[in-house]
Amino acid sequence: MGTRLAELVERFGGQLAGDPDLEVSGIAPLADAGASHLSFLSNSKLRAQALASRAAALIHSPADEEALAAGFAGARIVTKNPYAYFARVAQYFFSLTEVRPAPGIHPNAVVAAGAQVDPSAHVGPFVTIEEGARIGAGVVIGAGCFIGRDAVIGEDTRLFPNVTFHAQCVIGKRGVLHSGAVIGTDGFGFANEGGVYIKIPQTGRVVMGDDVDIGANTTVDRGALADTVIGNGVKLDNLIQIAHNVEIGDHTAMAGCVGVAGSTKIGKHCMFGGAAMINGHIEIVDNVYVTAATMVPNSIREAGQYTGFFPVAPNKEWERAAVLVRNLEKMRDKMRELEKQVKALTETK
Amino acid sequence: MGTRLAELVERFGGQLAGDPDLEVSGIAPLADAGASHLSFLSNSKLRAQALASRAAALIHSPADEEALAAGFAGARIVTKNPYAYFARVAQYFFSLTEVRPAPGIHPNAVVAAGAQVDPSAHVGPFVTIEEGARIGAGVVIGAGCFIGRDAVIGEDTRLFPNVTFHAQCVIGKRGVLHSGAVIGTDGFGFANEGGVYIKIPQTGRVVMGDDVDIGANTTVDRGALADTVIGNGVKLDNLIQIAHNVEIGDHTAMAGCVGVAGSTKIGKHCMFGGAAMINGHIEIVDNVYVTAATMVPNSIREAGQYTGFFPVAPNKEWERAAVLVRNLEKMRDKMRELEKQVKALTETK
Amino acid sequence: MGTRLAELVERFGGQLAGDPDLEVSGIAPLADAGASHLSFLSNSKLRAQALASRAAALIHSPADEEALAAGFAGARIVTKNPYAYFARVAQYFFSLTEVRPAPGIHPNAVVAAGAQVDPSAHVGPFVTIEEGARIGAGVVIGAGCFIGRDAVIGEDTRLFPNVTFHAQCVIGKRGVLHSGAVIGTDGFGFANEGGVYIKIPQTGRVVMGDDVDIGANTTVDRGALADTVIGNGVKLDNLIQIAHNVEIGDHTAMAGCVGVAGSTKIGKHCMFGGAAMINGHIEIVDNVYVTAATMVPNSIREAGQYTGFFPVAPNKEWERAAVLVRNLEKMRDKMRELEKQVKALTETK
Repeated sequence: MGTRLAELVERFGGQLAGDPDLEVSGIAPLADAGASHLSFLSNSKLRAQALASRAAALIHSPADEEALAAGFAGARIVTKNPYAYFARVAQYFFSLTEVRPAPGIHPNAVVAAGAQVDPSAHVGPFVTIEEGARIGAGVVIGAGCFIGRDAVIGEDTRLFPNVTFHAQCVIGKRGVLHSGAVIGTDGFGFANEGGVYIKIPQTGRVVMGDDVDIGANTTVDRGALADTVIGNGVKLDNLIQIAHNVEIGDHTAMAGCVGVAGSTKIGKHCMFGGAAMINGHIEIVDNVYVTAATMVPNSIREAGQYTGFFPVAPNKEWERAAVLVRNLEKMRDKMRELEKQVKALTETK
Repeated sequence: MGTRLAELVERFGGQLAGDPDLEVSGIAPLADAGASHLSFLSNSKLRAQALASRAAALIHSPADEEALAAGFAGARIVTKNPYAYFARVAQYFFSLTEVRPAPGIHPNAVVAAGAQVDPSAHVGPFVTIEEGARIGAGVVIGAGCFIGRDAVIGEDTRLFPNVTFHAQCVIGKRGVLHSGAVIGTDGFGFANEGGVYIKIPQTGRVVMGDDVDIGANTTVDRGALADTVIGNGVKLDNLIQIAHNVEIGDHTAMAGCVGVAGSTKIGKHCMFGGAAMINGHIEIVDNVYVTAATMVPNSIREAGQYTGFFPVAPNKEWERAAVLVRNLEKMRDKMRELEKQVKALTETK
Repeated sequence: MGTRLAELVERFGGQLAGDPDLEVSGIAPLADAGASHLSFLSNSKLRAQALASRAAALIHSPADEEALAAGFAGARIVTKNPYAYFARVAQYFFSLTEVRPAPGIHPNAVVAAGAQVDPSAHVGPFVTIEEGARIGAGVVIGAGCFIGRDAVIGEDTRLFPNVTFHAQCVIGKRGVLHSGAVIGTDGFGFANEGGVYIKIPQTGRVVMGDDVDIGANTTVDRGALADTVIGNGVKLDNLIQIAHNVEIGDHTAMAGCVGVAGSTKIGKHCMFGGAAMINGHIEIVDNVYVTAATMVPNSIREAGQYTGFFPVAPNKEWERAAVLVRNLEKMRDKMRELEKQVKALTETK
C-alpha cells in the first residue's frame, strides 16, 4: 500500500539513513505523524519536536544530521532543502489518489465550431468556449468556466470551476487558475472631459508565461494598447488586482489582497505581503520584498525589504499617537525654538 | 393584511403598551415610518426622532420608557434589546413575502449519480454536483453553483447563485454563502528552491460550523495538511480572504476586505473592521476588536480594541507629517543633544 | 482600409493641419506608432517623444501647436482635450472590428416565462433570468450570468460573463458590468444579542444610473430598508466593496480594492485611489480626492485631496520610525520638561 523509502530517494534524491524497504503512505506534520508517515524538519528551531515525533521517517537538512542521528529512532532522508523535498514527495502522494477529470467535452458544454480543443483536454459542464480559442493537451477546464475568442490555454494548465478567461488572452503550460479568477477584463481607462468619463477601449491582452498560478477571485486586466504581462513561475494568491499594462517578472509571488495599479513594472523574484498596494507607473527592481499592508507610492531601485504601516496599539494609545503624528510640525517647531534658546544661553554664559 | 401587535408579542416577547389589536404590515426607519409601520429606537440619542415618528408602534428599551410613554402617541413594545427584536420582527415580515425556491433538481443541473440530494432541497439551473457530495434537507443551491466531490452542505443552508464549493469541504446548518464566494480553493503553499516555487498540495478541507455567513466573492482556502476551521455563528462580509489553516472562533465577525494570513488562530466573539489585515501564524484571543484598516503583525493576548492606521489629513499636511515621521530619529537625536546641553547649563550655573 | 483624417475631424471635431485624405487604420502610443497610425500627445512633457514619433498624424492641444507645427512632419489634429479626443477615436476604431454578439436567446439559457427580454438583446449560454426581470434593447448578457426576479437592465447595458445581478436591482442605460461582479447581495446587517448575531433581512435594492461601469469581482450590497444608490457615470474598478445603503454621486470614480462601509454618502466627481477605505455613516462632499491606501474615518466637508498612509522605508528604518511613533508621548513629555528647564535657566540667568 505504501511507497518504499528507496523508491522516494530514487525519485527525488537525498541520502537515506535507515531501512530502504520501509514503506510510508503519506506525509504528516511532526506532531501528528504516526508509524506510516513521513514527516519533515525544515526549521531547526523545531528540532525538539522532530526528536519527539513518531514518524516512520524524517526529511531533514545536513545541519540537523548530528542531532537526529543521535536522538531520532526512525529512518531519515538528508537533503539540502527539506521543504522543497517535502513539496515533491507531497505532490507524489497526492498524485496517487487524485481524481483527474477524464478527457473529453461534457455534453453540457458549448464549444464554438472554430475552437480547437485537444482530445486529451477535459471540458466540464456549463463551459463556454468561443470561436478561435485553442485549448492545449492535458488541459482541465472546470465547470462553468468561460473562454473568450482566440484565447490560448497552454498544455496541462488547469482552470478550476467558474474562471473567466477573456478573448485573446494567453496562458502558458502547467498554469493553475483558481475559481472566480477573471483574466483579461477591461482595464480601468477613461478620459475625463468636463468631469464626465469617456471610456478608452482596452485592446491589449493578458499574456502569462508557464507555471503561473492565479488565486481565487483574483483579477488581471487586459492592456490598454499594449499587453499586461505575467512572467514564468509567477504565483498570485487570492483577491489580487493587477491593473492594465502591469508587467510582473519571473518567479515573483504576491500574497492575498495585493493591488498593483496600471503600467507598473515589477522585477523578478520579488515578494509582496498581503494587501501591499503598489502605485501605478512605477518600477520595482528584482528581489524586492514588500511587507504586508505597505503602500508603495514611488519606484524602488534597490533590492531589499520595504515596510510602511502604522504600528497597531490599544485604541487609546493609538489615538494619542495619531494626534501627535498630526502635530509633529508643532513639535518640530518647539524643538527649533528650544535649540535657539539653549544656544543663546550657552553663548551668553 | 397586517399582523396584530399581540401576535408579535406572543412570538417574540416584550411588554406591549397600547392596543393589542393594532395591525402593522412592515418595518420602517423612524423618519419614514407611517401608520401601518412598526419602527424601533435602539439608540437613545435618536429619542427626539422617535418622539416625532409617525409609526403606528415603536420597539424600544426600558431606558426610553419614561420619555416615550409621555411623548409618543402610538403603541410601544418594550424589550431589553430593541435592535435584536427589530431583527426578529423583520425576519418575520420578510418570511411572509419571500419567494422560496421549490424543492427539486432543475433539469439543467448536472448531478453525479453518487451524490445525495435531499428531496426537499432546491438545485437550480447550471449547477454541478460531483460524486459523493451530500446536500441536506431544505438546502437551496442557486444557479451556476459548483459543489465538489464529497462536499457536505448542512440542512437549510443556502448558496446564492455562482458559489464555488470545493471537494470535501463542509458547512453546517442554516449557513448562507453569497454569490461568488469560493470555499476550499488551494491554499497559497509553495516551497522555494533556488528562487523557483514548488507547489505543496493542499489536502486539508474547509470545515464550517452552523449559522455561518460567507459574503460575496469572499475566499476561504482549504488547509495544507490539517483543515481550515470556521466556528459556529461566524459572519464574514464580502471580499474577505481567509488563508489555509486559519481557525476562527465562534461568533466572530469580519467586515469587508479583511485578510487573514495562514495558520492564524482567532478567538471567539472578535470583530474586525473593514480591510483589517492579520498576519499569519499568530493568535488573537477572544473578544478582540480590530479597527478598520489596521495591520496586526503579532499575536494579541488581551481582549480590547486595537487600532493602527495613519491619520488622514489634507494632502500637504500629510506630506509634511510623513517627512517628519521618517525623520523621527533625527528629532530624537536632537532632543538628546538638547537634554545634554541643558543638563550642562544647569550644572555649571 | 483606413479612415480619412477628414472623416475623423467631421465626426469628432478639431482643427486639421495636413492632408485631409490621409488614411489611418488605428491608434498607437507615440513610440510605437507607424505610418498607418494616429497617435496623441496629452502631456506636454512628452513633446520630445511626439516630435520623434513616426505616426502619420498626431492629436494634440493648442499649447503644443507651435512646437509641433515646426518640428513634426506628419498631419495634426488640434483639440482642447487630446486625451478625450483619443478616447473617442479609439472607440471608433474599436467599433470597426468589435464582434458584437447577435441578438437572441441562446438555447442553453433558462429564461422565466414572465421575464421580458427585448428581441434586440443577446442572452448567452448558461444564463438564468428569473420571473419579472426586464432586459432592455441592445443589452448583452454574457455566458453564465444570473439575473434575479424583477431586476431591470437598461438599454445597451453589457454584462460580461459570470455576473450575478440579484432580484429587484436596477441599472440604467449603457452600463458595463464586468465578469464576477455581484450586484445586490445582502448587506452585512446583524443584531447582536448576547454575543450571537441575528440576521436583519436586507430588503432594499441597488439602484444604478446610466453610464455606470462596475469592475470585475466588485460587490455592491443591496440596502437594508432603503436602497443603495449609484449615480450616473460612476466608474468602479475591480474588487471594490460597496456596503448597504451607500450613496455615490454622479461621475465619481474609484480605483481597485476600495471599500466603502454602510450608509456613507459620497458626493459627485470624487476620486478614490486604490484600496482607500471609507468608514460607514459618514459624508464626503463633492470633488474630494482620496489618495490610495488612505483610511477615512470621519466625514470630509471640504473639497480637496486627502491622504493618510505610513511612508514606506527600508524595513530597518521603518522599524525604528515605528517604535518612535509609538513612543511619541514620551518624546513630547521630555520636550515639555526641557521647555521648563530652559525657561528656568533663562529667568534665573
